[in-house]
Amino acid sequence: MKRYKPKPRLYRGFRDIFASDLLMRQQMLDSIREVYELYGFAPLETPAVEFVETLGKFLPESQTPDGGIFSFQNEDDEWIALRYDLTASLSRVCAQYKDIQRPFRRCQVGPVYRLEKPGPDHFREFYQFDFDTVGTKSMMADAEGCCVLCDALEKIGIERGNYLIKVNNRKILNGVLETSGVGLIDTSTDDSRAMNVLRSIDKYDRIGLKGVKELLTTGREDASGDVMKGLGLSENEISPILEYLQVGTGDRVEVCDQLESIVGNSEIGMKGIEELREIDKNLRCLGYEEGQIVFDPTVVRGLGYYTGPVFEAVLTFEVKDEKGRVKSFGSIGGGGRYDDLVKRFTGQEVPATGASIGVDRLLEALKLVGKLEERSTSTSVLVAAMDKNHLFDYQLIAKELRSAGINTELYLGNKGIGGQFKYADKCKIPLVVVAGEDEFSAGELQIKDLEAGRELAKEVLDRETWRKDRPAQFAVKREDLVAKIKETLNL
Amino acid sequence: MKRYKPKPRLYRGFRDIFASDLLMRQQMLDSIREVYELYGFAPLETPAVEFVETLGKFLPESQTPDGGIFSFQNEDDEWIALRYDLTASLSRVCAQYKDIQRPFRRCQVGPVYRLEKPGPDHFREFYQFDFDTVGTKSMMADAEGCCVLCDALEKIGIERGNYLIKVNNRKILNGVLETSGVGLIDTSTDDSRAMNVLRSIDKYDRIGLKGVKELLTTGREDASGDVMKGLGLSENEISPILEYLQVGTGDRVEVCDQLESIVGNSEIGMKGIEELREIDKNLRCLGYEEGQIVFDPTVVRGLGYYTGPVFEAVLTFEVKDEKGRVKSFGSIGGGGRYDDLVKRFTGQEVPATGASIGVDRLLEALKLVGKLEERSTSTSVLVAAMDKNHLFDYQLIAKELRSAGINTELYLGNKGIGGQFKYADKCKIPLVVVAGEDEFSAGELQIKDLEAGRELAKEVLDRETWRKDRPAQFAVKREDLVAKIKETLNL
Repeated sequence: MKRYKPKPRLYRGFRDIFASDLLMRQQMLDSIREVYELYGFAPLETPAVEFVETLGKFLPESQTPDGGIFSFQNEDDEWIALRYDLTASLSRVCAQYKDIQRPFRRCQVGPVYRLEKPGPDHFREFYQFDFDTVGTKSMMADAEGCCVLCDALEKIGIERGNYLIKVNNRKILNGVLETSGVGLIDTSTDDSRAMNVLRSIDKYDRIGLKGVKELLTTGREDASGDVMKGLGLSENEISPILEYLQVGTGDRVEVCDQLESIVGNSEIGMKGIEELREIDKNLRCLGYEEGQIVFDPTVVRGLGYYTGPVFEAVLTFEVKDEKGRVKSFGSIGGGGRYDDLVKRFTGQEVPATGASIGVDRLLEALKLVGKLEERSTSTSVLVAAMDKNHLFDYQLIAKELRSAGINTELYLGNKGIGGQFKYADKCKIPLVVVAGEDEFSAGELQIKDLEAGRELAKEVLDRETWRKDRPAQFAVKREDLVAKIKETLNL
Repeated sequence: MKRYKPKPRLYRGFRDIFASDLLMRQQMLDSIREVYELYGFAPLETPAVEFVETLGKFLPESQTPDGGIFSFQNEDDEWIALRYDLTASLSRVCAQYKDIQRPFRRCQVGPVYRLEKPGPDHFREFYQFDFDTVGTKSMMADAEGCCVLCDALEKIGIERGNYLIKVNNRKILNGVLETSGVGLIDTSTDDSRAMNVLRSIDKYDRIGLKGVKELLTTGREDASGDVMKGLGLSENEISPILEYLQVGTGDRVEVCDQLESIVGNSEIGMKGIEELREIDKNLRCLGYEEGQIVFDPTVVRGLGYYTGPVFEAVLTFEVKDEKGRVKSFGSIGGGGRYDDLVKRFTGQEVPATGASIGVDRLLEALKLVGKLEERSTSTSVLVAAMDKNHLFDYQLIAKELRSAGINTELYLGNKGIGGQFKYADKCKIPLVVVAGEDEFSAGELQIKDLEAGRELAKEVLDRETWRKDRPAQFAVKREDLVAKIKETLNL
């Protein structure tokens, strides 16, 4: 009987991650966790599955099918979804447990899911690493959030000058919208006229002032010929918005002064500027200068739930990808204040602020700049299984190395010794321990150093010479094995 | 306008995990990872979402609605599901990537999802930590799997004698089924007569010989009055099965000898015994005795895809839960050989073996026996914010402590100093740094040691005395802060 064979494939937008990337990511996550915990954020974990109504509708992509989330009905016909961020779940937790102490400072890392159009660097499952303080109105918390981002990025090896935290305030954006006559943002939905204006402003980075103006008025046709409908704002309405977008990002105090001249008549706008001034003072006290944290009026942040300061972490350097194309990474994280998110459940305002690092995107960037120690595997030694009569010996050698803390694989496949070397080479295992009848009789073992071999091979033009000389292979006495392996591996 | 407020709640069977448990779990995962990597298993990560046909139907719970998995249709009307284990995804990976070197040795940790009836200790999302070797027929790999489980359990603090790895072989079970006349297991489905007999055998632990006999023949009514239909086997059919179940778990060689007397006429049964004998020899060579690893003919393992040796890790000690009830933990992991799982996709047999540790269940056990360092939070110090005029000072104190590697929270709430002490106490933060105008003028800070305070409080009968004496609070010079905190925390 011929059975149906399913095709081994991934649902698009999802991916497998192999050892080399995972080892780097682990290194990165450990550094980020260290910084978050240094600031007193303790870990929390929530399920990947939540009720749809817990998540709310805050995704900028909620125009896409199913509102950008993976949802399904459960056994009781309730709507369930995979979380699209960690913040909605945090709000649920804060509303659900009466005995949670506030301020509640937690950090959380885990995958989130978005039903978006996938692309080469754009996945539907990706990691976020968040920290938040729930239950604080203090601008010290928002300032601290910016500092945490700086410290975390520096901890994983991004030097000062190669990143920037850009800060803005939704209240100031509200002030501009009020001044322009568009009206205020409704944080309980992201489907308002004000949110659409914000989305146009959010594109400033890519499409410039002219592009934003088109989006706000009559519409815009992009390079590919796609037409975006305009929002139909009048000249009077767009004038303060365009002026606002040209403020730039100089000295933090000067930016506040300029913003005041634009939104000075809006109470909420002035409140936002006051908050930024307070953030600036705290940052100054702690020694975080404009080289690390700037005020940038063009920053919006996509999610609809922000109510105060918002911040975005960007990498400022350019790198070339494998094909030599210049790549600019842009935003690798961000966050802000969301005073109404717990209120959705309880009716009571619970001020909160926090941020998130987009772990996978950051990893891509760090790989390209070589900022992480690259290890293709966590395994250091392969014990070759050459002679069937010595299988117990090979197992004991492996056991001895493991007891000494050396990550060791015993070859369990069915290839000959040549195939085993090739295997170690392909798996990037640096050392192979080899022994046959001769070696065991002599009380010796051979160590083949594949990494040294690769280095040498680069220098040797003639493949035959390389083979004949067998560089990077040497004998050790059985009893010196562990010491010699440790020496070779620099352990 | 009164808005609809969703109730903050979890989908049943799902849960939130707070700092105390997470810190213990992290410690446990780090230990397990260390052992897995010591054996040369390199990390892999696959998505939580897979095509239903990738997962196959191997769950023993597939009688439940939707076959025990959370499934939904995607935008192309294909059936998608949350993975129920990590093995199916591993098989997909091995079938999908042509350049994967074999043996492929990987470890993977992550949540898996099962649509089962939830209970107090039974969740629908739980962590598994797997290791597998794909592409090896060698019984060294199966023996190694048992050793890895032993080493991992010992590494996290479970002493020898408190755990047991029970090993059996599906081929021997097949031999019994053949001898009895029931017929062989079909590994491509779990819905066969043979699998139903295995499921009855699997209950031996709980219902004993008499119970299994009832299930195999006329049916069984349990204590709650639920009736399980019998499988209708004849006396002749059940006779070798019952004899088999009484072999017991003595010396590994003796167990093999006894099994041989039962299934000696079955070719597949003899092959299974031969495999166990080989495993025994390897274990003996490596020094793993019957106190750690036994052969137990009653072990079945629920999943349908096993083809050879199967093993189960059990905790052998009993503990009392919070309510003083005696709890026996039983299985906290296991695995086995599954030679046909990759074949499902490719048609080619790819022998494979591996095992999984049920991280959450193990954590519950370790918590009750106090085998893990219990920390309620990762935060060591709370800097109290007492005096609004000194907010910059408090921030600088926090910064200084963090720079010294001390996890420090700056209080950002709006409570007074009494409330802040209470907060630190509830959050189990051991130390509070306090300073007001007097202290700053004198160049001093106060350190309140809440942990010491709690200890002292136990000894002091009179609450007023305790308050008056203010035990466990002391002054330090501003410049000695870091040194004194480190001393107090034993850092």
